[in-house]
Amino acid sequence: MDWSMRNEEFKTQLFRFVDVFPYLTTGESLNRHIEEYFASQDQDIPSVLKWGAKGARLGGGLTSKMLAKTLRFNIENMAKQFIIGENTKDALKTLSKLRENNFAFSVDILGEATVSEEEADQYQRSYLDLLDALEKGRKDWKSLGNEGSDLDWGHAPKLNISVKPSALYSQATPADLEGSVQAICQRLKPILSKAKQRNTFMCIDMEQFKYKDITLEVYRRLRTASGYRDYPNLGIAFQAYLLQTDQDLDELLKWARQKALSISIRLVKGAYWDYETFIAKQNGWEVPVYTSKAETDAAFERQARKILQNHDICHLACASHNIRSLFAVLEMARALKVPEGCYEFQVLSGMAEPIRKGLLKVAKRVRLYCPYGQLLPGMAYLVRRLLENTANNSFLRQSFAEGVEIERLLEDPIEVLKREGENTKTALPDEAPISCDNGHKPFRNEPAVDFTRHEKRAAFSKAIAEVRKMLGRTYPLWIGGKEVKTEDLLSSVNPANPSEVIGHIWQAGRNEIDLAIAAAKDVFPAWQSTAAENRARYLFRAADIARRRIFKLAAWQVLEVGKQWDQAYADVAEAIDFLEYYGRQMLCLDVPKRMGNAPGELSHYFYQPKGLAAVISPWNFPLAISCGMCSAAMVTGNCVLYKPSGLSPVVGYMLTEIFREAGIPKGVFNYTPGRGKMIGDYLVDHPDISIIAFTGSMEIGLRIVERASKAQPGQPNLKKVIAEMGGKNAVIIDDDADLDQAVPHVLYSAFGYQGQKCSACSRAIVLESIHEKFVRRLVEAAKSIKIGAPEDPANYMGPVVDKAAQQRILKYIEIGKKEGTLLLSREVPEEGFYAPLTIFADIKPHHRLAQEEIFGPVLAIMKAATFDQAIEMANSTRFALTGGVFSRSPRHLEQARETFRVGNLYLNRGITGALVGRQPFGGFKLSGIGSKAGGPDYLLQFMDQRSVCENTMRRGFAPISQEDDWI
Amino acid sequence: MDWSMRNEEFKTQLFRFVDVFPYLTTGESLNRHIEEYFASQDQDIPSVLKWGAKGARLGGGLTSKMLAKTLRFNIENMAKQFIIGENTKDALKTLSKLRENNFAFSVDILGEATVSEEEADQYQRSYLDLLDALEKGRKDWKSLGNEGSDLDWGHAPKLNISVKPSALYSQATPADLEGSVQAICQRLKPILSKAKQRNTFMCIDMEQFKYKDITLEVYRRLRTASGYRDYPNLGIAFQAYLLQTDQDLDELLKWARQKALSISIRLVKGAYWDYETFIAKQNGWEVPVYTSKAETDAAFERQARKILQNHDICHLACASHNIRSLFAVLEMARALKVPEGCYEFQVLSGMAEPIRKGLLKVAKRVRLYCPYGQLLPGMAYLVRRLLENTANNSFLRQSFAEGVEIERLLEDPIEVLKREGENTKTALPDEAPISCDNGHKPFRNEPAVDFTRHEKRAAFSKAIAEVRKMLGRTYPLWIGGKEVKTEDLLSSVNPANPSEVIGHIWQAGRNEIDLAIAAAKDVFPAWQSTAAENRARYLFRAADIARRRIFKLAAWQVLEVGKQWDQAYADVAEAIDFLEYYGRQMLCLDVPKRMGNAPGELSHYFYQPKGLAAVISPWNFPLAISCGMCSAAMVTGNCVLYKPSGLSPVVGYMLTEIFREAGIPKGVFNYTPGRGKMIGDYLVDHPDISIIAFTGSMEIGLRIVERASKAQPGQPNLKKVIAEMGGKNAVIIDDDADLDQAVPHVLYSAFGYQGQKCSACSRAIVLESIHEKFVRRLVEAAKSIKIGAPEDPANYMGPVVDKAAQQRILKYIEIGKKEGTLLLSREVPEEGFYAPLTIFADIKPHHRLAQEEIFGPVLAIMKAATFDQAIEMANSTRFALTGGVFSRSPRHLEQARETFRVGNLYLNRGITGALVGRQPFGGFKLSGIGSKAGGPDYLLQFMDQRSVCENTMRRGFAPISQEDDWI
Repeated sequence: MDWSMRNEEFKTQLFRFVDVFPYLTTGESLNRHIEEYFASQDQDIPSVLKWGAKGARLGGGLTSKMLAKTLRFNIENMAKQFIIGENTKDALKTLSKLRENNFAFSVDILGEATVSEEEADQYQRSYLDLLDALEKGRKDWKSLGNEGSDLDWGHAPKLNISVKPSALYSQATPADLEGSVQAICQRLKPILSKAKQRNTFMCIDMEQFKYKDITLEVYRRLRTASGYRDYPNLGIAFQAYLLQTDQDLDELLKWARQKALSISIRLVKGAYWDYETFIAKQNGWEVPVYTSKAETDAAFERQARKILQNHDICHLACASHNIRSLFAVLEMARALKVPEGCYEFQVLSGMAEPIRKGLLKVAKRVRLYCPYGQLLPGMAYLVRRLLENTANNSFLRQSFAEGVEIERLLEDPIEVLKREGENTKTALPDEAPISCDNGHKPFRNEPAVDFTRHEKRAAFSKAIAEVRKMLGRTYPLWIGGKEVKTEDLLSSVNPANPSEVIGHIWQAGRNEIDLAIAAAKDVFPAWQSTAAENRARYLFRAADIARRRIFKLAAWQVLEVGKQWDQAYADVAEAIDFLEYYGRQMLCLDVPKRMGNAPGELSHYFYQPKGLAAVISPWNFPLAISCGMCSAAMVTGNCVLYKPSGLSPVVGYMLTEIFREAGIPKGVFNYTPGRGKMIGDYLVDHPDISIIAFTGSMEIGLRIVERASKAQPGQPNLKKVIAEMGGKNAVIIDDDADLDQAVPHVLYSAFGYQGQKCSACSRAIVLESIHEKFVRRLVEAAKSIKIGAPEDPANYMGPVVDKAAQQRILKYIEIGKKEGTLLLSREVPEEGFYAPLTIFADIKPHHRLAQEEIFGPVLAIMKAATFDQAIEMANSTRFALTGGVFSRSPRHLEQARETFRVGNLYLNRGITGALVGRQPFGGFKLSGIGSKAGGPDYLLQFMDQRSVCENTMRRGFAPISQEDDWI
Repeated sequence: MDWSMRNEEFKTQLFRFVDVFPYLTTGESLNRHIEEYFASQDQDIPSVLKWGAKGARLGGGLTSKMLAKTLRFNIENMAKQFIIGENTKDALKTLSKLRENNFAFSVDILGEATVSEEEADQYQRSYLDLLDALEKGRKDWKSLGNEGSDLDWGHAPKLNISVKPSALYSQATPADLEGSVQAICQRLKPILSKAKQRNTFMCIDMEQFKYKDITLEVYRRLRTASGYRDYPNLGIAFQAYLLQTDQDLDELLKWARQKALSISIRLVKGAYWDYETFIAKQNGWEVPVYTSKAETDAAFERQARKILQNHDICHLACASHNIRSLFAVLEMARALKVPEGCYEFQVLSGMAEPIRKGLLKVAKRVRLYCPYGQLLPGMAYLVRRLLENTANNSFLRQSFAEGVEIERLLEDPIEVLKREGENTKTALPDEAPISCDNGHKPFRNEPAVDFTRHEKRAAFSKAIAEVRKMLGRTYPLWIGGKEVKTEDLLSSVNPANPSEVIGHIWQAGRNEIDLAIAAAKDVFPAWQSTAAENRARYLFRAADIARRRIFKLAAWQVLEVGKQWDQAYADVAEAIDFLEYYGRQMLCLDVPKRMGNAPGELSHYFYQPKGLAAVISPWNFPLAISCGMCSAAMVTGNCVLYKPSGLSPVVGYMLTEIFREAGIPKGVFNYTPGRGKMIGDYLVDHPDISIIAFTGSMEIGLRIVERASKAQPGQPNLKKVIAEMGGKNAVIIDDDADLDQAVPHVLYSAFGYQGQKCSACSRAIVLESIHEKFVRRLVEAAKSIKIGAPEDPANYMGPVVDKAAQQRILKYIEIGKKEGTLLLSREVPEEGFYAPLTIFADIKPHHRLAQEEIFGPVLAIMKAATFDQAIEMANSTRFALTGGVFSRSPRHLEQARETFRVGNLYLNRGITGALVGRQPFGGFKLSGIGSKAGGPDYLLQFMDQRSVCENTMRRGFAPISQEDDWI
């Protein structure tokens, strides 16, 4: 531990090793991981590890076996320091010892992440059992501090438990606040009931920020539930590091006063600081926690004071290891003359023993937070504790390991803040501007929707209601800046409710294509000569319009193609990203590159558009993909004929409206929806089309590639085809995979948007030794999700896009039944185009279910004997689009990076939801031809390259520039 | 002038304007150029010009007419300062005046560049006429300094002329030293004869470095020619700034002593400093001149001393305007006690009047160098003089305009050098290394061959002789690291002498293709996993091998495909460039790009190979294009089947030898020559081929594109086709084009390598007002070139590649006769596949000669009324490969940059000879599909893109890197 504080890289390896350690159940596996984690480390590591790692590399033997034993012993010992026992017997023994030393306790059951309702039930049961077990201890335990009472210190129940609400409901999500609250309350009530029965204090722990509002609401509901209003021994934890805590605290105190209830708050600093910051940064959200430790410390003291000032209705459990914080609160309480029964102190079992002993002497009422449970599920907890102990600015590290001056350690955090001055800003820093940015802000992804915020949830509901009022309208074509109607009308319906018509769309025939081509040809010379910066501005303007309408644009998708809230929102955000990213990229590409530096010669390399582009789009990302292809074509100077899918023409029209309002010149963008059979080949074969940007099925893609390559008479250019096609994407579950991660991510990758993403997971390739466990948890998780209309955010899965899709999927399910073992086929609503969520096991590489793209909620599970075999299986299809690996073996991750050959590979995360500029998207083999969308090479495809070389020497004289290779 | 010294940009504009000025014969043209050159200048320019430029922009009128008049008057006056007269009468008047003022003279006739033999004849005639004219003046002129003698100063002929040797032969080239010397001597002899007859001194001027050895040899031949040994009044100029001058001087003095001849040397500093430096830098040669002024000054004094020390056999004309140099020489002469008759001083007429007057007083014998002739041809001379006056380190500028201290001005240049210390290095500076260079030197183009160096000429002759000894061998295929023979043998012959067989090549059939594909598939996994740096090393090794064999590899091309020396060498140099450039580029592309900077997420973007590549190559750049396509495919990790053209299979085998010797693993490179009809489609259709890199005709290219796009059963990838096809390239001659440049460059672009380059000029689009003059000079130039076997470097043009090409070209000539006016059809040798050099005028855009690629020495001249129309004509074909513009109108150059839409546009230079990394090569429309060869985007085509995104957060903990967007 000491060593890891001095070496960040080693610390990472050590923590990761500790994290995976419980999964290393064989000697081979343990040795391999030791070598992988530590053998490549530089010289500067503890010799015992180096020596051990070398031993492991040499193939094991006595040395490495001994090392393995030592390591196991040490890690388990370390765990035991923090975890009071693996079983009830051990735990009760520890608790007895604590109480003998005059410490109270609160017991918390460690658990794996709850990925299914079965696991939530189990967690609930384990608490009910715990309450029974504690009851057995009670009679042996004398009460603390006040011999005359059955209560500790005269007021506190001897028994005290802490519960994690998210573990009690596998489907908790901020988008469905109400549903989450109800489900958690439902599972908490029996526990609370028993606690009340046994006069046991129950504290609801505060976990990740995303569950905060759910947890607060759960507390309010339970505290006021009939039969519990009179039971005051229900507490909730508050995290001082959250920016919102002051406000939450005020509101809860106000609420308690209004309701005339006494409450109890455990005030902690907060244990998910890194996590919250990562997630916020990754999603483009404001960081919800203070970014400086002093701010948190100051907030802690401020909030403790607020609670102490309200001691008449609120009990305070002051939980910290920071001596300054603890004693500041103690002094505060004394100064405010708060009765002793109104506050206590809490520290974590196993942490900072000297502090808790000193504290006990001064403050008397000290409770230890005691995690209990098996090592394996407890590892997450252990790593969090290790982190806390080794964080650079941790009080413990500073005081015990580094010996920082006592004055500094005990300094008022407000003074520290003043000293730190400007460094405490919480705003996102701007990235360094790029050289060709022309004053535009650097590209940032549009933030994901943050459904922890009430106004976002409300806005979505409102948008759906508003859009619903607009259903059933008729939409024209948009050609050369004019609205055009035809004889042929096509209707689009809500797949969750096919009787609900979304809109009617006039369909283009060959005449309208000719009209659009003429309009595009007409404006092309002017458009290609328009400064790239001005073309980019149209995109930025379109992005602004889409941003203003983001909820409505998402709502249209919910109704027209059956997308869930967050994913519909993400589709619009991706459309905005394409506009902002391609616009900026064009600014860069527009700067001619000087080639060579010979004096007297000025040679430049630059790009120009190709001409007319046909954009043929799919329905599954109806705005984003359409917008990406169209905006790429336009910003590079081409003119566009846009044919949306017949299943999402209304969303396509919304894109048209955006470009119209952005003021894109007439004829540059033409909206020409039409029936593929009528105009598809005509468009592709047309001599005046120079680019075809297509996203869709392999069959149509191959047809387009073949037809487009035939030079037509009078054709000015060889046609460029950019085709994004199918996938048969696999996720590998290695034998050391963290199943807490793997199960929910595979579930979402396979069944998110009903599996109708080209990136969706349709094969899970699982290592034999973990197969049973993974499959069990996955199937239970799949059973737990809700299926129904996507307009209800509680539903995880909805209908597929149309009847044909439904039929195709059902056909594949029949095939699957013959090829493999049916593990799960969820029942689905009768009305609407639902296809059952289906999981097959025992699928072999040659099966159709392992080879053919189904594009629906059907997952094939395959078993692999080794990681090598898993990679081979993963690569054994005609496709190469996305893939994933869950593993904690550095070598396997490296191997996957190298040999799992797909366009987008994801390690230890889900395989859908590629972000523009972060995970440029697209595959190869028969998954597509062309450069990755949202990546640095995409726009190049829409342009030809030119080189202009000027001899600047006249009569032996030439101007010399700074870049010249001159004397 | 004063103003231009303070503003570099304005100086450039002013010099360029002075340069184009004589061509501005209409008021409209003059006004337009004034505006273009000066209106866009910033505020800080002389108000008269700004005012005038604005007037010009406002459409002309009284003000602008006045300005035009003023400008014309001023520029003509400036010219008159340096040029003694436009006709003989004026000139004689000026000379009389000079002599009255006690100055002697040497008359030099200003001329346009000599681009044809007719012009060389005319230049010769003008000297003969000049001698007659001077004779008329002689009787009126008293001799200087020594009244008693008919000679000036008692020893010097009154009449004195200076002659530029390059103007007397239009085909002078260092590669053909002997031919050039003979031709120049032949035209000089009548002049020398008449000079001797009239007792006139004749000095042979020294011009550009490339003519230096020719000029020295001409002097030696004439000085020793029978009938002239006894005539000592023949001098030669030496340039002190040349690094070789000390040696040349020693050799000439030694030679004179051996031959017992007296000689005369005019020592100058040298007037082509910028030009020599530009040319050397552009070609990758050592700069032949001193790079610091002080070095030149020191060399001048050193060489003057050497001559004075040899005054018994050598007369010195000390020519300078630098007071330090002049007086140092004067003092030196006195110190060495050199008789007065052995040295004189020379200055340029019109320069530094105060110096020449002062000099006359002290040194007595001062001769003025007097240019004479028309303003227009004299402009080159005028600009050189302006340059000299305004160079930063010019003595004149420093002394007169800037008033530098007298001590500094007169300082010994050796002292200056000591002060300047290290700054005097003449070596090429290394470019800044690129970040991904991995320690390899930065890319530099392989230097062009420098035929001024005797050893290079000798090496080429020797290589041809050696290659000739190896003709007629039989060559096997090279498949999977084995030599393979078949039943089918094809022979390749020398197009200049079809009875000479170059070699016999076994031809691959389908079996051999299958064999090669199996070998390539076998090794592909290992090759794609080979570190990119190691793959690059094979290329660098191949480059080293090619560099060692460069003359032999070039010689093979001379014999197998009829290439001229310099161009055959350039083809090998280009092959080397591809190896070095692509190798380095791969090092860069191999570095995965981090995408985004979200903490807890590590997202990388990188490339992987596609698989097997078929490389189908042409014969016209038999090594370079083959090597470029093969090396690009291999360095990116693909395996190659290489099918060379049936017309250059032996050169193709030489490439195979290079890759073999470089150690490229078996099966990675396979040499599979074969008959197109037998294996072409088979290769293209083959499901295992993933890339087809083709360079050749449009017809075959389109066929490949179409066939390759049809997905075959079992095909792993969609095929990528990179096709470089034809061109119908135009050069526009604007009405203000510098014809001294335009004529030789169009000639070379059209008839270099017999017009058999995809980049060759096949249309010249000439503005009406300059049409007659351009066409006259071009046709005369075309009449002047030599046609014959390319192994003789005197021949400018050789045979076309085979009988079929010859027949096709002859057919087009017949078509041309019907469509346009035949201006020239040169007779060609009977034996060999010669096609006549042919020029047609009056070709219209709809003619076949304006639309179809002929690929031979046939040039179509088209007339355009306006520059707009010229651009329109240039763009009016199906092709878009190369193009060129000769213009001195800034606006037209800008317009061409924007709207002359071809892959490679060249301004004011020839349109062939694109260099790797400097002018990335390739076109669009029906000229090709794919990225430019030798450019930054080329290798991308051979690879697929991958993205790997790792979630690095485990249990809420992730390592933070410096690039992360962290707090």
